[in-house]
Amino acid sequence: MSRTINLAVIPGDGIGPEVVAQGLKVLRAALPQDVKLETTEYDLGAQRWHRTGETLPDAELEALRQHDAILLGAVGDPSVPSGILERGLLLKLRFAFEHYVNLRPAKLFPNTRTPLAGRPDIDFVVVREGTEGPYTGNGGSLRTGTPDEVATEVSVNTALGVERVVRDAFERAQARPRRKLTLVHKNNVLVYAGHLWKNTFDKVAEEYPEVTTDYLHVDAATIFLVSQPERFDVIVTDNLFGDIITDLAAAIAGGIGLAASGNINPAGTHPSMFEPVHGSAPDIAGQGKADPTATVLSVALLLRHLGHPAEAARIEAAVSADLAERDGARSTDAIGDALAARVSA
Amino acid sequence: MSRTINLAVIPGDGIGPEVVAQGLKVLRAALPQDVKLETTEYDLGAQRWHRTGETLPDAELEALRQHDAILLGAVGDPSVPSGILERGLLLKLRFAFEHYVNLRPAKLFPNTRTPLAGRPDIDFVVVREGTEGPYTGNGGSLRTGTPDEVATEVSVNTALGVERVVRDAFERAQARPRRKLTLVHKNNVLVYAGHLWKNTFDKVAEEYPEVTTDYLHVDAATIFLVSQPERFDVIVTDNLFGDIITDLAAAIAGGIGLAASGNINPAGTHPSMFEPVHGSAPDIAGQGKADPTATVLSVALLLRHLGHPAEAARIEAAVSADLAERDGARSTDAIGDALAARVSA
Ligand SMILES: CC(C)[C@H](C(=O)O)[C@@H](O)C(=O)O
Ligand SMILES: CC(C)[C@H](C(=O)O)[C@@H](O)C(=O)O
Repeated sequence: MSRTINLAVIPGDGIGPEVVAQGLKVLRAALPQDVKLETTEYDLGAQRWHRTGETLPDAELEALRQHDAILLGAVGDPSVPSGILERGLLLKLRFAFEHYVNLRPAKLFPNTRTPLAGRPDIDFVVVREGTEGPYTGNGGSLRTGTPDEVATEVSVNTALGVERVVRDAFERAQARPRRKLTLVHKNNVLVYAGHLWKNTFDKVAEEYPEVTTDYLHVDAATIFLVSQPERFDVIVTDNLFGDIITDLAAAIAGGIGLAASGNINPAGTHPSMFEPVHGSAPDIAGQGKADPTATVLSVALLLRHLGHPAEAARIEAAVSADLAERDGARSTDAIGDALAARVSA
Repeated sequence: MSRTINLAVIPGDGIGPEVVAQGLKVLRAALPQDVKLETTEYDLGAQRWHRTGETLPDAELEALRQHDAILLGAVGDPSVPSGILERGLLLKLRFAFEHYVNLRPAKLFPNTRTPLAGRPDIDFVVVREGTEGPYTGNGGSLRTGTPDEVATEVSVNTALGVERVVRDAFERAQARPRRKLTLVHKNNVLVYAGHLWKNTFDKVAEEYPEVTTDYLHVDAATIFLVSQPERFDVIVTDNLFGDIITDLAAAIAGGIGLAASGNINPAGTHPSMFEPVHGSAPDIAGQGKADPTATVLSVALLLRHLGHPAEAARIEAAVSADLAERDGARSTDAIGDALAARVSA
């Protein structure tokens, strides 16, 4: 465990810088006395793209690689054509740094909104694959713009890529009290990728006899997420299905304003990146209205990843206590202050 | 409008035959005096596959083609390996008969369960593409079963295929009071297919100035489906996204037991097929416990498609009235009788 955390910070666009400031505040408050934090800011996102046309130059990719971890606020703006920052920055980082575990916990904290009736018991985590599937950018378009256009998207799935994320999910399931792991796919239609996922899952399952396993088609999974969310403990799924069900999971577990995520390279060969699931919300940027809680919870994931589980748990407890007493609107800064105060106390 | 409806019936497996019997009962009760119904049963599904190894022989495909429409109960059984009946029967029919509009209404009837708090106003219809996207069976696996396996799935999207379903969705939106159409895709990641969908949508929109349009990424769409379902009127989307969001839509609008669907060939060059969204539910088969309402509502879609809108509306009104008074468990048969009685009255 390093005594200095050498953190790269990408504040990004819209509310990104505001929520990141609070995330760093709480991170500083949570760190043990003998651990130093060094931060380096990287100016990446919509503004940078408008100024220079660059999304993520190689030199900055290499510089980012030297850090212990990355904290990202949010990138994106309606003024940038769809796909440019997503593929040129966010996904490029996930792919270049082999963030094959996209970790997204869903927990319904006290006193938070859920669109579901009766406040079900929601406490699960989605292990979304982060480096393969339909996200690889494979595909193309023939006779573009004509009445004869054919556009394809190729989902690429490798035994290497599937097995490493499935193993990680079994490890996480094994470490939780309920020890239950659900594979979500669509193997009755996507039979090639589906067989690879299902066979790998079944094979690795033999090494984890204490973990109860289950399989759901992605369409059925959305039904259970709203009708019986308590049935889930750990979910493992592909990149696109994971994208979809984690937004749904965030919606039922208090809203996207509370959803944290880690883009994790468990092998530690590259820095992992932590970011709130929400976007840059340009409509409320600069007004001190953004809720920094998702970023603060992402900081907890960061600390756990870097080997500080007690500090991570302290942040999560602070969020839980703060939400339990939250009442009326508070500014971004006020929420950050309150969380930092609880964490230091 | 034909004076005889020449209907093919595929009862299928599990609860399929039970719900189809009620669907036919209500269909007979709803038909105008001067319209005759002729039905031909086709023995297709799990049992047939176990007996003969066949899913849908060419001769039967040709025979089915001669009908005005098809009513299907449900196919599938855990004893059949995943994918065989889906691809060899269900999807084969959708593809062979160019069912490019997969129509799935979501309406929250009175006195029905929804997992959402506060009974939001849910009344929208999803126009799911039915003949392209990741459902084409394109893909494969290299070095299968080895640690070096690569499995691919190819989403194929054509201008022809996208434009015809988008046009159909605009027509449906134009005919509804709210006149709102939302395109759901993931064009920030699946850029090739995404551009084709978005450009086609924007181009066709110019011909429908009275229709308000909107675009949502599929992940964001799942959030709105549970947090603000009243914002939707008509949704148009690709085959896989449509599969996922229509199960979610069914879950919030009273459960999968009430969800109807039509696999429609609007051009009328091939018979359209109507089926409940639910599966064959082998666990409750033969016990008279299955709710035939989804099949009955699918029969309403069938009648509307065949040019009997008043009769379709009568069935829907009967379902609504029946649900409003439903109280305690009734048998499959009792529900069918009650609906048929209301429709004839
Ligand atoms: C912005 C987009 C590329 C991204 C994704 O699809 O992964 C986002 O939706 C997410 O879930 O982090
Ligand atoms: C059974 C399966 C092939 C089918 C689909 O994926 O389309 C089903 O889920 C549906 O929605 O009708």
